[in-house]
Amino acid sequence: MSLSLAIVGATGAVGREILRVLEERSVPVARLRLFASEKSAGARVPFRGEEIAVETIRDGAFRGLDAVLLSAGATTSRRVVPQIVREGSLAIDNSSAFREDPNVPLVVPEINGRRAAEHRGTIANPNCTAAILLMAIAPLHRAARARRIAVASYQAVSGKGARAMDECVRQTREVLDGKRAVPEVFPRPIAFNVLPLVDELTPDGRTREEIKVENESRRILEDPELRVDATCVRVPVLRCHSEAVSVGFDRPVSLDEARSLWAQAPGVQLVGDPPASGVPTPLDAEGRDPVLIGRLRASAVFDGGLSFFCVGDQLRKGAALNAVQILEAVAPAAAKERR
Amino acid sequence: MSLSLAIVGATGAVGREILRVLEERSVPVARLRLFASEKSAGARVPFRGEEIAVETIRDGAFRGLDAVLLSAGATTSRRVVPQIVREGSLAIDNSSAFREDPNVPLVVPEINGRRAAEHRGTIANPNCTAAILLMAIAPLHRAARARRIAVASYQAVSGKGARAMDECVRQTREVLDGKRAVPEVFPRPIAFNVLPLVDELTPDGRTREEIKVENESRRILEDPELRVDATCVRVPVLRCHSEAVSVGFDRPVSLDEARSLWAQAPGVQLVGDPPASGVPTPLDAEGRDPVLIGRLRASAVFDGGLSFFCVGDQLRKGAALNAVQILEAVAPAAAKERR
Repeated sequence: MSLSLAIVGATGAVGREILRVLEERSVPVARLRLFASEKSAGARVPFRGEEIAVETIRDGAFRGLDAVLLSAGATTSRRVVPQIVREGSLAIDNSSAFREDPNVPLVVPEINGRRAAEHRGTIANPNCTAAILLMAIAPLHRAARARRIAVASYQAVSGKGARAMDECVRQTREVLDGKRAVPEVFPRPIAFNVLPLVDELTPDGRTREEIKVENESRRILEDPELRVDATCVRVPVLRCHSEAVSVGFDRPVSLDEARSLWAQAPGVQLVGDPPASGVPTPLDAEGRDPVLIGRLRASAVFDGGLSFFCVGDQLRKGAALNAVQILEAVAPAAAKERR
Repeated sequence: MSLSLAIVGATGAVGREILRVLEERSVPVARLRLFASEKSAGARVPFRGEEIAVETIRDGAFRGLDAVLLSAGATTSRRVVPQIVREGSLAIDNSSAFREDPNVPLVVPEINGRRAAEHRGTIANPNCTAAILLMAIAPLHRAARARRIAVASYQAVSGKGARAMDECVRQTREVLDGKRAVPEVFPRPIAFNVLPLVDELTPDGRTREEIKVENESRRILEDPELRVDATCVRVPVLRCHSEAVSVGFDRPVSLDEARSLWAQAPGVQLVGDPPASGVPTPLDAEGRDPVLIGRLRASAVFDGGLSFFCVGDQLRKGAALNAVQILEAVAPAAAKERR
């Protein structure tokens, strides 16, 4: 089996990471087309020793492809996904555009991978903060049903794309040079600061990012009664999202039970446990696939509950890796259908 | 009334801030002695247009003084506070050394200021993260009794002193220059990273900082049943601690009631409310007295509870300002006693 693929948003932070993950995982790619906006068209991007020219999207661009991985924002996805479906390819979309659509499976392969096969041409990739949180929660949820989750995030600037990373570095230099940090991508300075504002505020006081984490948790864990209280905060970290989590269950879960559940779960790794041996930080998770979990202890606010800290590379498990894992799960069927 | 004072740890981050706060608040200081370790002795520190020589502590150093403000760590406080008391002065201690001593009041003047008068020679200043949290919680607690608090912190490097600030700046330059960040003060790199480790880990998985926040909250709010779940995290911010808080009460508290309680409370300021008008960040709180509160919304995990984000300058309300406020509350009595 060999796949004909395309990436929309190929020159962005997630697009470049998708190329890296395809290479690393030796995904059998027969043909790869790369799409981006006008200003990146004509650029040449290396992939497996070759150079691929970046194109703009025209009619028929997706004909004859098995799957298209999109990471170019919700507006682009809303416009392009219908074309992909119409032209007979599978859309694996990293934006928020279709995540609440009941006809579009929202998939983290390790958690609800079986839902991917139910797709009708489109599969949604979850919000990165939700994906990292749920990788840690799902093994516990399956055993003891999580009822309440309080989570505060420490989100890297790359979650907002390559320009946001550049802005963080530029502002940091400005501050070190005694200048004022001038915000452009972020609404406020991010150098040596934290911003309790990821995506837009809504009238009830939550941000769209927080609403995504709350709603997507319920949808991916398939538990409409789960209550999630998220505070999403941007921090001057270039890569990897961290989350401080307290979770209450239907029944008490001991530290040892949690350790054992995580030890058996794919895609997570307990570090610094017993705690004296260390803690997981964003720098430890950079470029790595597993979500790192540490600082495990009993929760003081949820009876029989747990508190912990988890860190994941949001460009990987939160985006590129998860999208490629979805592709791997459904690609044989997609490739077969085309034949 | 005019006071004879001393500062122990006068050249540290908090010591320098105490001098600034004494100047700003026009505290009537007749005489001021500054103490620090051997290596700072002989340095001259400006105060109200004069220069004061920094001394090392000798026998009799505290005779004839009304009060001594200490901020030189718990080890120094354990050694020096008994001498201060023996030599007839009041010790206002910023370290954790005496905070759990039932004979030593632990005071945030706006919350339990009346306890200051019960001192027997020593008054303890709370942990900075606890002080900032409790400034926001106390007005709500008085009205509706807080029962459960989940808090995740975003703590500035200056909470660990001036050397930690230097390390953050140095490491940041190293990373921008393409070098590896070398940790010295912090156990791991702090530049472009977050460290879910403030103070030491203990066998139950909590850090000493988290235990301080939990225990001191109960002590200052005088509610032994209050349950606090704290995750303390160091972030690459030079100054000001931020905290993401979810709190459940004995009865439902509406957003409007919280707004009204905070509007009447001294030392706190609601910003960005309604939320669309902005959010509080560490850069907004720098050098300012009030604890800034924002991102107010209903809690999803505590019925009738609230979630919010608060930010305070931990060198001020978390340390220097609070110590000087304690001094102002008890100084008339202290000065009178001496006469």
